[in-house]
Amino acid sequence: MFSTGIKKDRLLSAEIWTGQGAAAQLGNFLQSAHRHNRRYFLLSDRNTHLHCLSRLDGQLPETCGEFSIAPGEGSKSLEKAREIWEWLQGEQASRDDILVCLGGGVVTDLGGFTASLFKRGMGCIHIPTTLIGMADAAIGGKTGVNLGYGKNQIGCFHHPLAVFIDPVFLETLEEDQLRSGFAELFKCALLTGDRAYEKAMHTHHRDTDGLMRLIQQALDVKMKYVRLDPEDHGARRALNFGHTLGHAIESLAMKRSAGGILHGEAVALGMIGEGFLSWRITGFCWTKLQEYTAFLKKYFPEPPLKAADADELISIMKMDKKNKGGKILFSLLKDTGDPAWDMEVEEEMVRKAIGFILKDQSSC
Amino acid sequence: MFSTGIKKDRLLSAEIWTGQGAAAQLGNFLQSAHRHNRRYFLLSDRNTHLHCLSRLDGQLPETCGEFSIAPGEGSKSLEKAREIWEWLQGEQASRDDILVCLGGGVVTDLGGFTASLFKRGMGCIHIPTTLIGMADAAIGGKTGVNLGYGKNQIGCFHHPLAVFIDPVFLETLEEDQLRSGFAELFKCALLTGDRAYEKAMHTHHRDTDGLMRLIQQALDVKMKYVRLDPEDHGARRALNFGHTLGHAIESLAMKRSAGGILHGEAVALGMIGEGFLSWRITGFCWTKLQEYTAFLKKYFPEPPLKAADADELISIMKMDKKNKGGKILFSLLKDTGDPAWDMEVEEEMVRKAIGFILKDQSSC
Repeated sequence: MFSTGIKKDRLLSAEIWTGQGAAAQLGNFLQSAHRHNRRYFLLSDRNTHLHCLSRLDGQLPETCGEFSIAPGEGSKSLEKAREIWEWLQGEQASRDDILVCLGGGVVTDLGGFTASLFKRGMGCIHIPTTLIGMADAAIGGKTGVNLGYGKNQIGCFHHPLAVFIDPVFLETLEEDQLRSGFAELFKCALLTGDRAYEKAMHTHHRDTDGLMRLIQQALDVKMKYVRLDPEDHGARRALNFGHTLGHAIESLAMKRSAGGILHGEAVALGMIGEGFLSWRITGFCWTKLQEYTAFLKKYFPEPPLKAADADELISIMKMDKKNKGGKILFSLLKDTGDPAWDMEVEEEMVRKAIGFILKDQSSC
Repeated sequence: MFSTGIKKDRLLSAEIWTGQGAAAQLGNFLQSAHRHNRRYFLLSDRNTHLHCLSRLDGQLPETCGEFSIAPGEGSKSLEKAREIWEWLQGEQASRDDILVCLGGGVVTDLGGFTASLFKRGMGCIHIPTTLIGMADAAIGGKTGVNLGYGKNQIGCFHHPLAVFIDPVFLETLEEDQLRSGFAELFKCALLTGDRAYEKAMHTHHRDTDGLMRLIQQALDVKMKYVRLDPEDHGARRALNFGHTLGHAIESLAMKRSAGGILHGEAVALGMIGEGFLSWRITGFCWTKLQEYTAFLKKYFPEPPLKAADADELISIMKMDKKNKGGKILFSLLKDTGDPAWDMEVEEEMVRKAIGFILKDQSSC
């Protein structure tokens, strides 16, 4: 179905186009904006400039200016945001113009952030080119940049005007990017329910049709929670399953080496640790936990972690946005499709969860 | 009336307390927040730390941390915002905590900006200590920092939780700050109508009771337009009367000398120039224009401008946030109390308005 048809959803102010050929809707959208005297500017990274721009196949009129950033998490910085603002200012962009973001989560997070603040808010369009961008980053309106080693510490909510999710870009991805995105799809499957979970357990990360089905499934559950709670005060936090530990692991890896680790890999490890917490605290099924832990460990066999990292991970988690009053809060699962959020967990238990990630499953 | 009583308004999510003793409500507000485990942090500048903090008279429990910036427009920068974010991060502030902003427009604009983006949005409280802050900057939810010499180019809308407008701080102000604030009160009077205009023409800038009446009048007209159009897409732009030319004059002055000129002085000059445009384009009364021009020129006798600055002013105005499609748009007056916005004006006419500011009234 998704390899031949296009589906259109609406999430708050955003049109969301999904399916093969979705990107071909971009031209119509921009033409209509052009009739209202809105110009557009393109934000890409060096990879998407090289490998993805040509696949848009004439959807972008030639008149636009382009700013291309270095790929990778290091670009999600205030310094880079400033460069983009200076570029837009130099181009005499107005707040009625549109920033088209062509890339993965780094480009859409940074692009959404800069657009939302330029002259108190210009519109943006996201064309996610990574699996993780399609499954997660490009929808829901969260924007942000990192502050030091703190992920997304500075940001806001700014819904794009439109999102175009087209599998044509999956062909441009390396193996590790597909695996990384798959982790986020897997999280959404756990949040959706048993059938979705089973589907994820039996989808290969190179099967484009299978991935598009998982993407639609991920969008459905994400839209459900974003509609319930657009600004993340409650129910939307369900979507953070795997992300408290995941973000801490990602921050630590970023601190230790320039490349860090992929977001999806960190989230996969986070889901293993927080699955353990879910088993201990909210009664998640032990057999299912073992089953999906084994599955994810096949994908991500060597966590860049050791037991001695626990202190530093905990101190990073204390900076997490989701916390309140200095306590570390987690989003956990009672069962597949049945999340719990704002769950306070003792440090000692968090240490056990880190131990569980490190495969010392006897410790539980 | 205002020297003895306190008035409470509500503007969107903000409680607005006005009158002598308003600041004494702060303690109650913070105590109630404290019961919900919300901590608060204080943002001041060196002047308000020295002269205003002591006048809060025990309203702030001692436990809070404080960050104090250098006074002046130069602090409204991305660099300063970053320092504040790093401070909040170091204090392990959460998004449920509150940033209390004690100061003039620089402190409340910068404080609102940093609060709105810290962990995707923490609450803030404004305690304006300058006349211009009380009359304008602290309410309405506009936040921002400057980019290069472009005023407020980077910002967003973030309504404070509460604003406390107390004349106790007027005693701390120098002559030029009172005159600067008076200009903004005068603008609001022009937007309100004839009686308000007459009242402003007959209020002395050192008469505290008179100023409090003008402040309430200014708040009323500002709240009216903010409620009509919270995010500045139409009617709220009426409040920009005097500000297109005013911001350009302010930016130019900032570029030329570290201190620049006071915002109110720039707005006063802007109101003279845009009053001229209003006469030529929207039929504003010539006699009234002459009358208030003479009045404002007594307040601000020596504009730091010369005829040769016109080109540079126009090039700065082309960056103005209110523009669309490269055209310079103005907010003008048809009459007192009867504004018009999004008025496109030819460059040649803008040059004539600059000539009018320079007192060469024979040129019209």
